[in-house]
Amino acid sequence: MDTEITLEQLNNLIVNRRIKDLREFLETINSADFPYIFDNIDDEKEIMIYRLLTKAKATEVFVELDSDEKEKLINCLTDTEIKNVMNEIYMDDAADLIEEMPSNVVKRILTNTKPADRKIINELLKYPDDTAGTLMTTEFIDLKENMTVSEAFKFIKKKGINKETVYNCYVLTIDRKLLGIVDIKDLLIADREQLVKDIMDTNVIKVCTLEDQEEVTKIFDKYDLIAVPVVDNENRLVGIITIDDVIDVIQEETTEDFEKMVGITSTSDNSYFKTSVFTHAKNRILWLLLLMLSATVTGTIILNFENAIATLPILVSFIPMLMDTGGNSGSQSSTLIIRGLATDELTVKDIFKVMWKELRVSLLVGFILALVNAVRIVIQYQDIQIAILVAMTIICIIVSSKLIGGALPIIAKEMNLDPALMASPIITTIVDVLSVLIFFGLATVILKI
Amino acid sequence: MDTEITLEQLNNLIVNRRIKDLREFLETINSADFPYIFDNIDDEKEIMIYRLLTKAKATEVFVELDSDEKEKLINCLTDTEIKNVMNEIYMDDAADLIEEMPSNVVKRILTNTKPADRKIINELLKYPDDTAGTLMTTEFIDLKENMTVSEAFKFIKKKGINKETVYNCYVLTIDRKLLGIVDIKDLLIADREQLVKDIMDTNVIKVCTLEDQEEVTKIFDKYDLIAVPVVDNENRLVGIITIDDVIDVIQEETTEDFEKMVGITSTSDNSYFKTSVFTHAKNRILWLLLLMLSATVTGTIILNFENAIATLPILVSFIPMLMDTGGNSGSQSSTLIIRGLATDELTVKDIFKVMWKELRVSLLVGFILALVNAVRIVIQYQDIQIAILVAMTIICIIVSSKLIGGALPIIAKEMNLDPALMASPIITTIVDVLSVLIFFGLATVILKI
Repeated sequence: MDTEITLEQLNNLIVNRRIKDLREFLETINSADFPYIFDNIDDEKEIMIYRLLTKAKATEVFVELDSDEKEKLINCLTDTEIKNVMNEIYMDDAADLIEEMPSNVVKRILTNTKPADRKIINELLKYPDDTAGTLMTTEFIDLKENMTVSEAFKFIKKKGINKETVYNCYVLTIDRKLLGIVDIKDLLIADREQLVKDIMDTNVIKVCTLEDQEEVTKIFDKYDLIAVPVVDNENRLVGIITIDDVIDVIQEETTEDFEKMVGITSTSDNSYFKTSVFTHAKNRILWLLLLMLSATVTGTIILNFENAIATLPILVSFIPMLMDTGGNSGSQSSTLIIRGLATDELTVKDIFKVMWKELRVSLLVGFILALVNAVRIVIQYQDIQIAILVAMTIICIIVSSKLIGGALPIIAKEMNLDPALMASPIITTIVDVLSVLIFFGLATVILKI
Repeated sequence: MDTEITLEQLNNLIVNRRIKDLREFLETINSADFPYIFDNIDDEKEIMIYRLLTKAKATEVFVELDSDEKEKLINCLTDTEIKNVMNEIYMDDAADLIEEMPSNVVKRILTNTKPADRKIINELLKYPDDTAGTLMTTEFIDLKENMTVSEAFKFIKKKGINKETVYNCYVLTIDRKLLGIVDIKDLLIADREQLVKDIMDTNVIKVCTLEDQEEVTKIFDKYDLIAVPVVDNENRLVGIITIDDVIDVIQEETTEDFEKMVGITSTSDNSYFKTSVFTHAKNRILWLLLLMLSATVTGTIILNFENAIATLPILVSFIPMLMDTGGNSGSQSSTLIIRGLATDELTVKDIFKVMWKELRVSLLVGFILALVNAVRIVIQYQDIQIAILVAMTIICIIVSSKLIGGALPIIAKEMNLDPALMASPIITTIVDVLSVLIFFGLATVILKI
């Protein structure tokens, strides 16, 4: 691994006190590789390395670290060093930092932040969780419509170096309303004397500060954007969201969906190892408990057929297979529908189309599985009646589980619940009840017990 | 919805034959909105609209359409019109098009493609599926190290308009080896007479043509890139991958993971509705069949305890609850681990850390669930022995299912299998067997039956 070699070279340079070479070498390392380096080097060397970085690089590296490392580092830094970080940091990262740190650290950070920036950070912190407002940064290039291309270039050259993204520039009125957008590409190919208003694109795709972050990711995906402007109720530009933050949101939302789909309540975006044993247990127990208690219903139903079991104990041996097949086949359908809803391929209106498709798929799958099972039972037990019973049960279970699995996520969405909740655990519990009811129901009819 | 209004306006303009206004209006609509418009307008109007677009816009719109629409459109276009598309299209989109179309359409497309482009497309089609080579496009800005910034600007102005991304420029030697990268931002803030070699970054993050696409997405995510250069074995630049294609891959890989985790074999990136009933059934039946047959093992084990059931029929009623709880608790663990492996938070080396964490979490969860159940059983049946039996079984099942759920995905990864396969369906089946073994095993000891 490349970072392994980097680490070794770093250690060598430090041990041999070759400070000048060390400083040069550090500048060649990508900021995103520092978290790994800091994890694998002792604290003293870490601080030494950090202090050898240029101001801009030091801030870049700081932002990449996870919150524990950030806290540790802040506690070692002087007030001047913290000031340097807060001068260079982007406002969205600053707001995230304030949210992550314990209050004593927050106090120290804010004391070392310029009053104007402190105000911006406070504004950013006011937006509700998971909205566009919490994702955006307030640094962007704003042009005026009557600038020439040449003036725009000069303006960017003067201001641009501090901006998180300079690939899109935003054209604003005097009261900061968004008029249009200029892609750097268009500036580059335009003639020097052209006016910004003649090359700007006025069909701007923008989002509102309170837009849900999942909707923001969908807009980036659909329109292939690298940044999107965020406006307030009066169409005033208040910030921009850049693609790198959007990718993080996509990953975060996916993890949340995965967790919800197996009945884990996720409380934060903490990692597996950083989440404590107690929190892990707390996140998992609620659904396990609910599902466990619901599953006793299935047991009670079985007890009602005590006589049938006493007459023909072999019936019990089919229960696990029937329950599992129903659960699995229902989960397949619900997962496809949940994913379809998440990627906007399906909408609530499609419910009947989904039902019709699932019906046909389930009949096809059901018949084949029923046949395989019937053949197996005839060979194993030479009992055609039981073979017919199990085969018919399987068809009924697969059809009903696929219809339920297909419908529940859509119904959840219609009721403004998260479709991801209607996944494997709930489907399994519902289908279990159905499975034993269908099985013993058919058994009483076919076997007359 | 905005697109609804657009659609109405379009229909009005067409009905009133206001061709000039229509043409102007079309240019203001984002290319990404055309698939929706074409889906909701009749074919005749579709062709008319398409023909009113400028060459560049027509190609942009064409690329956005799904393969059925593309095929329909090509069959209506003249050879000249196809030539126009193939002159404007990016090479990665061209290669995708050739892969999607039936052979007669492919032939017609290639006849209308320039020989040089045909050669590039053929090269792109040779890369194995899911590698960087299939994602890249061959259009990029290549600078020479001895150019001045001013010359670079002129070069970009001349060539740049046709390039998919101009935000990064690549500095190449005469034999096309990659020397460095210049971000447009750095060009914009540099002085006109500076040389490209003095502002280029030589610590280039790049990928090889055969790199797996999932690794490519991880590199984008880690380093917050908007494009990555793709080099061959001799470090010659052959193409670039842009962020919009990477987001598509992330979504595609996530869908694949979701599908695998419920035992669906995904054969293509087709959508839910476009996949036929037969293909849906085929994709779902394999795992259902395997799991169904495996589940008969659980049944056979239950039959071996026929005497115990005959003595105490109530035992059977606990089986569904125990099996479900085990399955759910194992799936929770395996899902967290699968996701951790997919996002590189966990590696194979972490297996013992994971086991230790799962052990503690499962003991905590197990004790609480056991207690709740014991209380319930004592209240419901006034039978302390059964309460103890069920409580002890639950603890054992939750501990073992969480350990298995935590370990299997990691073991799969070590064996170069996809960890996503070790999800709910397989875990459930394994835990079922364990659950009845533990339950009846403990029953014979505690109840002495």
